Amino acid sequence: MIAGKSNVSVCLSPMLSENYSLTDSKAVIIDILRATSCWVTALANGAVSVHPVSTLDECQNFMDSGYIGAAERQGKQVEGFDAGNSPFDFPAKKVIGKKIAATTTNGSRAIRGLMPAKEVIVGSFLNFSAVARYLENIENKLVLTCSGWEGGISLEDMIFAGAMLERLERYYMPSGDAAVICLELWKSAQPDIRTWLRRSSHVQRLLKLGLEKDVDYCFTMDLFNIVPVLAGDEIVIPNK
Amino acid sequence: MIAGKSNVSVCLSPMLSENYSLTDSKAVIIDILRATSCWVTALANGAVSVHPVSTLDECQNFMDSGYIGAAERQGKQVEGFDAGNSPFDFPAKKVIGKKIAATTTNGSRAIRGLMPAKEVIVGSFLNFSAVARYLENIENKLVLTCSGWEGGISLEDMIFAGAMLERLERYYMPSGDAAVICLELWKSAQPDIRTWLRRSSHVQRLLKLGLEKDVDYCFTMDLFNIVPVLAGDEIVIPNK
Repeated sequence: MIAGKSNVSVCLSPMLSENYSLTDSKAVIIDILRATSCWVTALANGAVSVHPVSTLDECQNFMDSGYIGAAERQGKQVEGFDAGNSPFDFPAKKVIGKKIAATTTNGSRAIRGLMPAKEVIVGSFLNFSAVARYLENIENKLVLTCSGWEGGISLEDMIFAGAMLERLERYYMPSGDAAVICLELWKSAQPDIRTWLRRSSHVQRLLKLGLEKDVDYCFTMDLFNIVPVLAGDEIVIPNK
Repeated sequence: MIAGKSNVSVCLSPMLSENYSLTDSKAVIIDILRATSCWVTALANGAVSVHPVSTLDECQNFMDSGYIGAAERQGKQVEGFDAGNSPFDFPAKKVIGKKIAATTTNGSRAIRGLMPAKEVIVGSFLNFSAVARYLENIENKLVLTCSGWEGGISLEDMIFAGAMLERLERYYMPSGDAAVICLELWKSAQPDIRTWLRRSSHVQRLLKLGLEKDVDYCFTMDLFNIVPVLAGDEIVIPNK
């Protein structure tokens, strides 16, 4: 039995986050292509933590002190770093027991804007059901936060948000027009989500870079049963 | 015959406008509920011009110099002004031959961010086909700019954008995920757009204020055959 529902809203871009009262909310950070998919993969593969940083210099400094340095700009790995922003850059043999510093075009910056939230949870299709189950027990308001692309919006982040709103409908009440839209898009995208998402400009951009394998991987449901959260400056799997 | 298509993109909120290169584009300002619907109505009813201003003080100053002062905050007319933000506040007998200064929660502020554009055109359902025909002759890129609600997004502005994208598909190529979404929403909303739009939080807000008549009016297609544009600081019907 559910005594009462909490509100869930969707923030479509980090540039809109000031419209949301994060201090009394938990937030899910979403950057399906590809930051949150990478972080979830790296942690599932045995990395100790992921530290999102904004600049290449910061990333280099962490790398100099023993972190794996992951740096991406415009969809490509930046020269001189250990990894880019492909989930295939973080296999177990490379990341097990290691800390990672990561800077990407969108997701790494977006998560910093969420720091005022009560808790920040990392969401991707790869750990979709684990996140959904975790959220069932939360009594706070919830903001699903899409990282988008360079300040704009991203179809694939919104589809994730729509799927999560539907999954959580027994527990949370969707609030605001962005939530209505994400639910509607999620319905429109059935039954063939992968084909539907080909219309995303970010998907098109990655396909042009020859990254179809990454796109397919990032749209895979429930590969991992983990719920990474932000603890201080780093993303970790709690109690692990 | 159409030689080549220009790009059309959709900006979902004034807070996202810095992502768009306005200087080489024409822009349509959209605030269906209710600023652009009011401006179109006032000009169609014989007003000489509408001057959007940001603050109540500015509006008062214009009123002191003979303008009709229209001021709205949180959906309601501000005390002491001649009009609020209802299209029924601008009948011919009141506005004919007059200049209007208008400040509203969203639209009046949004239009100021569009000033760098080559031309700013005022769009509403009330003058939908007139605007569409006007845009057929434009060779510039086009940005359909939704005013939204307090920095967030608005379903009804996006439905207008989707309708316009569809109407202009022979002339313009939709660009970016926001355009994909608006087209998808416009399709979802068929055939009963008025019922579908009841999900908009802004519609709900106005209905709670007893403004059903305003909502119905603002969703009416093609009442007027005018294309208001921004000329300097004021919105006018050109060559009139």
